[in-house]
Amino acid sequence: MRVLVTGAAGFLGSHLCDRLLDEGHSVVGMDNFITGSRENLAHLAGEERFLFIRHDVSNFIFVPGKLDAVMHFASPASPNPHSPFGYVNLPIQTMKAGALGTHNTLGVAKAHNARFLLASTSEIYGDPLEHPQTEGYWGHVDPIGERSVYDEAKRFAEALTMAYHRFHGIDTRIVRIFNTYGPRMHTDDGRVVPNFLMQALRGQPLTVYGDGQQTRSFCYVDDLIEGIYRLLLSDEHRPVNVGNPDEITILEFAETINQISGNQGIAFHPMQRGDGDPQRRQPDISRARELLGWLPVVGLREGIRKTIPYFEEKLSLLHENRIKDPSSGRPGTGS
Amino acid sequence: MRVLVTGAAGFLGSHLCDRLLDEGHSVVGMDNFITGSRENLAHLAGEERFLFIRHDVSNFIFVPGKLDAVMHFASPASPNPHSPFGYVNLPIQTMKAGALGTHNTLGVAKAHNARFLLASTSEIYGDPLEHPQTEGYWGHVDPIGERSVYDEAKRFAEALTMAYHRFHGIDTRIVRIFNTYGPRMHTDDGRVVPNFLMQALRGQPLTVYGDGQQTRSFCYVDDLIEGIYRLLLSDEHRPVNVGNPDEITILEFAETINQISGNQGIAFHPMQRGDGDPQRRQPDISRARELLGWLPVVGLREGIRKTIPYFEEKLSLLHENRIKDPSSGRPGTGS
Repeated sequence: MRVLVTGAAGFLGSHLCDRLLDEGHSVVGMDNFITGSRENLAHLAGEERFLFIRHDVSNFIFVPGKLDAVMHFASPASPNPHSPFGYVNLPIQTMKAGALGTHNTLGVAKAHNARFLLASTSEIYGDPLEHPQTEGYWGHVDPIGERSVYDEAKRFAEALTMAYHRFHGIDTRIVRIFNTYGPRMHTDDGRVVPNFLMQALRGQPLTVYGDGQQTRSFCYVDDLIEGIYRLLLSDEHRPVNVGNPDEITILEFAETINQISGNQGIAFHPMQRGDGDPQRRQPDISRARELLGWLPVVGLREGIRKTIPYFEEKLSLLHENRIKDPSSGRPGTGS
Repeated sequence: MRVLVTGAAGFLGSHLCDRLLDEGHSVVGMDNFITGSRENLAHLAGEERFLFIRHDVSNFIFVPGKLDAVMHFASPASPNPHSPFGYVNLPIQTMKAGALGTHNTLGVAKAHNARFLLASTSEIYGDPLEHPQTEGYWGHVDPIGERSVYDEAKRFAEALTMAYHRFHGIDTRIVRIFNTYGPRMHTDDGRVVPNFLMQALRGQPLTVYGDGQQTRSFCYVDDLIEGIYRLLLSDEHRPVNVGNPDEITILEFAETINQISGNQGIAFHPMQRGDGDPQRRQPDISRARELLGWLPVVGLREGIRKTIPYFEEKLSLLHENRIKDPSSGRPGTGS
């Protein structure tokens, strides 16, 4: 296949490109570098089956040559309100990527008679009133809240994708992606994984809000990409949750990180209104299991071990002053 | 003021143009006539303060001269799945009007430093779990259902409007419009008012599904426009419900129509899954009352009497074969 991946320089987009190339496909990567990073694609320099086009998906898209699949992964995706990459600080770009970007990428799929896969998100469930969330849950989203620039853009993108499927017969897929971690994630993403890892590698006590009994579910990026790749090859048009349903308390998670990294200490702080990380969300992955035969296989300890070298490298670059510390001066909103 | 009204040839848009002209303002009307009708603007021919531009709002908008306000009313809005005007039959156009159209009209407001008013809808509440609906209710919408092309487009439009307000400082308003009736509404809108009126004026028994104990709330168009005009002149950025909270059962409504029109007979049919008219919705209008001093003042009998002449004229045109009967061959989905 020849596959267009938008958001190719992002955390998930770049892993997706790698996987597609590993499977022998050709990839056209597209990114405007608003939140994506050149470093995430640096290792593909010289790869003959990889073509990169710098472009903003909210403008009309032209791709030379044939395409067999279009995978729309372009969007700011960090909920960290203190990061310049956070979608609340890129509200118009986020809504354009979700609406105009989805419209344009669906147009490309239509023009090329290619299958289309939308990267949707657990955020379409908003602040859910049901646990765990099945794909049949309609969600609980404030349409005019600060986070609506992301949530409503993705809900719109899903609705538009289904409209193209129903009305134009486009061969579409929708994946609802839950909390994912791994190499190439933003170090100031504002979520608990990068916050804890950066603190642990700096030898600082990990910041836990409240008593740490609140829970999270984390999926290692390789597992996620496996699920997405299986969905692409499937015939399933309805949305499919892909994420790791294993819940862990923040306190257990902090202890695990300290254990693996050889760090010590946990600093308890009063609970804050979590404006960064989502409220509790946990995927029901019955459909992914039944339709795709997919299950996450990387345990948390193994995933963290695989992620640490990336954060160590980032940190050593910070120490060498070769890159600016993106988290300096900003409070963590980790848990 | 000089005001751009998109969807100017529609039911609500044309009444809005009339009201603005009556108040002494100048109006630029815009429509692409997908669901709007030239007849709705015919009476404005020769009006010096009215300029009409035929244009699709999902394409870049240019308006010569200054603008003080932009009112975005362009969208297919009929829930009737059996009508060619129904939004489920115009899914891509509906989503483009809501997303690209809102983006473009917000862009016009920004370029002209004009205030902006979005015509939103009670449909953003979806199939509500709270009655009556306050503006604080987040709604209950299926993001991938058939109706999502309208509901999610309007939710996206609200989110984008608030993003422009917060991020670009645009002076925005959002009105959530509930069930409205009056002259110039589509005769095959698929909702109960036109269905009953057409049957009554044809001397047919009115079709009531089930026992007729289900309820509706109807707002006469003049009341609605009054509320919208007051909102435009206010300083309120948060969404405001405008509609009539008086509930009436379908059976009472049928009896009222028969009484006023001199028709007789009600035909009870088994209840259908209501794919046309929304499920029960009733506005909480506390905010409109407090912020705008607005209340609906036209009673149902008075409103129906004011609406009948329009339907009589439509029917006589049908009899003269001057216009095609839009409802022929399609089952009613009235109540």
